[in-house]
Amino acid sequence: MRTIDWRGDHIVIIDQTLLPDEVRFVELRTVDALIAAIQQLKVRGAPALGVAGALGVALAELAGTAEADADRITRARPTAVNLAWGVERALRSPDRVQAARAILDADVSTNRALGQRGADLIEELTGGAETTLHTHCNAGALACVEWGTALGVVRALHERRKVREVFVDETRPLLQGSRLTAWELDRLGVPFRIVVDGAGPSVIARGLVDAVIVGADRVAANGDVANKIGTYPLALAATRAGIPFIVAAPESTLDPATARGEDIPVEERMAGEIGDRWPAFNPAFDITPADLVTAVVTEERVIR
Amino acid sequence: MRTIDWRGDHIVIIDQTLLPDEVRFVELRTVDALIAAIQQLKVRGAPALGVAGALGVALAELAGTAEADADRITRARPTAVNLAWGVERALRSPDRVQAARAILDADVSTNRALGQRGADLIEELTGGAETTLHTHCNAGALACVEWGTALGVVRALHERRKVREVFVDETRPLLQGSRLTAWELDRLGVPFRIVVDGAGPSVIARGLVDAVIVGADRVAANGDVANKIGTYPLALAATRAGIPFIVAAPESTLDPATARGEDIPVEERMAGEIGDRWPAFNPAFDITPADLVTAVVTEERVIR
Repeated sequence: MRTIDWRGDHIVIIDQTLLPDEVRFVELRTVDALIAAIQQLKVRGAPALGVAGALGVALAELAGTAEADADRITRARPTAVNLAWGVERALRSPDRVQAARAILDADVSTNRALGQRGADLIEELTGGAETTLHTHCNAGALACVEWGTALGVVRALHERRKVREVFVDETRPLLQGSRLTAWELDRLGVPFRIVVDGAGPSVIARGLVDAVIVGADRVAANGDVANKIGTYPLALAATRAGIPFIVAAPESTLDPATARGEDIPVEERMAGEIGDRWPAFNPAFDITPADLVTAVVTEERVIR
Repeated sequence: MRTIDWRGDHIVIIDQTLLPDEVRFVELRTVDALIAAIQQLKVRGAPALGVAGALGVALAELAGTAEADADRITRARPTAVNLAWGVERALRSPDRVQAARAILDADVSTNRALGQRGADLIEELTGGAETTLHTHCNAGALACVEWGTALGVVRALHERRKVREVFVDETRPLLQGSRLTAWELDRLGVPFRIVVDGAGPSVIARGLVDAVIVGADRVAANGDVANKIGTYPLALAATRAGIPFIVAAPESTLDPATARGEDIPVEERMAGEIGDRWPAFNPAFDITPADLVTAVVTEERVIR
């Protein structure tokens, strides 16, 4: 089961806004439909957005509008650099549809390799014992094509019988932790417990966690990491507790063109996602400074 | 309008579980009803729990069961030391009903004095300019009798026209920030915006906040502070950003008998507060180490 896939002349996605109550597949046959699905978070997660960008170019190519549509696909959401990466990579290719399909297929092998490398790293850092991990948001299969980044590492470690338990932040306002990550871990048979976002740092301070593992939406040239709002407090707590804070992301999430975290555009979403009664401030991402990151692990390397 | 009050022979409270949708007053005529109200958070907040403990002894005294009931009132919730403080203080008094009523009335003047002292402190620390504050949970009138602790400081500063805006964490799982603090600030005319709990630390890192002000459920002898889950990440972020992290609490919240934060009993509440679908871990409080606290301000002094 793929989170996002290509069927001859159109895209099929799982509508992630309906999970975990319903697994519904949705066909996207136009660039407008794709952009709406991206903005409504029916498809989300940096690697999946990279694939969506590439497949969006394929859709446009079939309609003869690739040059005209590429830019507005890129601008559908600002923070995850993968979206622009996928669009550009498909657009520049001599056979755009074929290139997009290659990006789709490569995501699976990329993340499997990333998972093994990350599992090796965590075994190295925690001495190879059974570990308790802490994660935020969803960096699982649902954020990719069919194998996750941070949860791909958890899955690889679980296959080695090295995961005792995973603490999962519920991840307000849209609950990607308690809706998506919990659903994935349940299906994988990995033991987990949900905590509210405010609890993560003290769960770490109490010595209940061996390592934090999260995904990323963009890694700046200096190593600063943009990820779902609520990541930064886990990094602060992990650093104070002296446990590893690991970022799992494919090479396509690294953005050498952006010098520092403060240069990364942070999407601000509708206040209504938090509630309708009061005014709200709703940044969707935060920036974790490089000095709080133990390592960024990609499919190719470990950057410390 | 008092959050908790005494009417001749019984207690009246505002049922805080119904706010902000409904302001309903509830009469408590038995110790059992009081304990249930405390455990269901119909009455909550450390200072209000101190008053509830004392008035509980008054109820029991009228029923001739004060000696027998004191201990189970104390044990209704474990973390806020004020509950035990209020029970003991009323119990030891020659006229228990009169003593409980005195504790009720003293809460108002105590917190007004605390508010002025805290406002002086923040003006001193921020240079006396208009400030943006960040708070967590509810340490307002609803956590006390009719004048808050942390929000009492905000209110005093607002009366001096020194509050630009307050960021309010929604405070999952029970949303005391977006249900209670927002309702109070709205009534006071203080500008505010809600943020999700995961956003607080990065809002601080972005330079949008001048000082953090929170209440406390217990302050250990070494200065470690127990407060609502999600307080510790704000202290970590404030320290890294170099802004003040202020705890506003009456003297009755200081617990010289508890040496360190790790000795404070942290209440673990039902997983169902977070959701019914998955297993959850639901500690209701966290511990902020003293080295992250700029100052504890009480009605009598500033402890740095």
